[in-house]
Amino acid sequence: MQVNPRLFSFVGGNSGVWKITSIIRNSGESLPPAEKLHIAGGAETEPSDSVWILRGATSNERYVERKEKDRLLREQPSLGRPEANCGAMIAIRKNAQWWSLTQDERRAIFEEKSHHIKIGLDYLPTIARRLHHCRDLSTSEPFDFITWFEFAERDTAAFEQLLKQLHATEEWKFVDREVDIRVAREKP
Amino acid sequence: MQVNPRLFSFVGGNSGVWKITSIIRNSGESLPPAEKLHIAGGAETEPSDSVWILRGATSNERYVERKEKDRLLREQPSLGRPEANCGAMIAIRKNAQWWSLTQDERRAIFEEKSHHIKIGLDYLPTIARRLHHCRDLSTSEPFDFITWFEFAERDTAAFEQLLKQLHATEEWKFVDREVDIRVAREKP
Repeated sequence: MQVNPRLFSFVGGNSGVWKITSIIRNSGESLPPAEKLHIAGGAETEPSDSVWILRGATSNERYVERKEKDRLLREQPSLGRPEANCGAMIAIRKNAQWWSLTQDERRAIFEEKSHHIKIGLDYLPTIARRLHHCRDLSTSEPFDFITWFEFAERDTAAFEQLLKQLHATEEWKFVDREVDIRVAREKP
Repeated sequence: MQVNPRLFSFVGGNSGVWKITSIIRNSGESLPPAEKLHIAGGAETEPSDSVWILRGATSNERYVERKEKDRLLREQPSLGRPEANCGAMIAIRKNAQWWSLTQDERRAIFEEKSHHIKIGLDYLPTIARRLHHCRDLSTSEPFDFITWFEFAERDTAAFEQLLKQLHATEEWKFVDREVDIRVAREKP
């Protein structure tokens, strides 16, 4: 069986270019401590030194509309910028009530009430991100989404402000588990 | 690793309660002939007698809005009705252009132009269906969706009419592979 080419594995353990600086539980159960984060394409199943492995696949947008996507495509930075020596891996799970909502109800909470896309757009081109969906993988995953962010150390306060705004939204009332893992690397 | 509890495997081979009566290719490549269809929960990877295995997971609705969902919940029959001795497994893949559209663009084609949900509602409670998503599984799957239908033999003409209506839609211009597998079983 071939692996989904859009699948990524986030491996907490003893190896990886990203040094884990904190693992903060915002709601629900935390994740065990680990020293390094390794992000790999494909399904890395059992690296011998791993403490945890979370998987997610990039996919088509679920809520973004054309005018929003055009702005995202124009302004969003790519991952791997040399100056972006800080990373954050935010894993969230949404509750059963969220998943029983219909598309129009979820979009209304996500954007019309919570301005999730608009908030993200306000932090471009400072903060790069890649969203991974975990809920429809073949394995039963502990989170629904993993978002990976990269930014320069000087933009850490902006990143904290972005999270603060998202945490205050109506949408976040449906989040029942959230773990925020911060990492740093040497500039190349 | 635990298997996604919403994952199903469709196995073409020599065993299963459903006898395969035809495999029709509507677009793209067909599937090899097989005698029986076995539908199993979980990821059946390599039954020794299988000719092909397709996998998909049920998930939250991507386009259905509240007024549509309420009617679906009221009127849709469950799978496994004793009189429903005919089945159809329709596997489709949509092209890259479809997947690059935004949510509002896809909904407009799917429902406002193509009336996909409305067409399905017209055939309730005659035809039971379950939709499976294949595109975000951990494995690279040959189709994006598998829809499983069950109906009584006397409703075969209605089912053909449903497919004819869907094939004539704007949405179907984005389908680049479609295989229609018909099956039958003895009434219990």
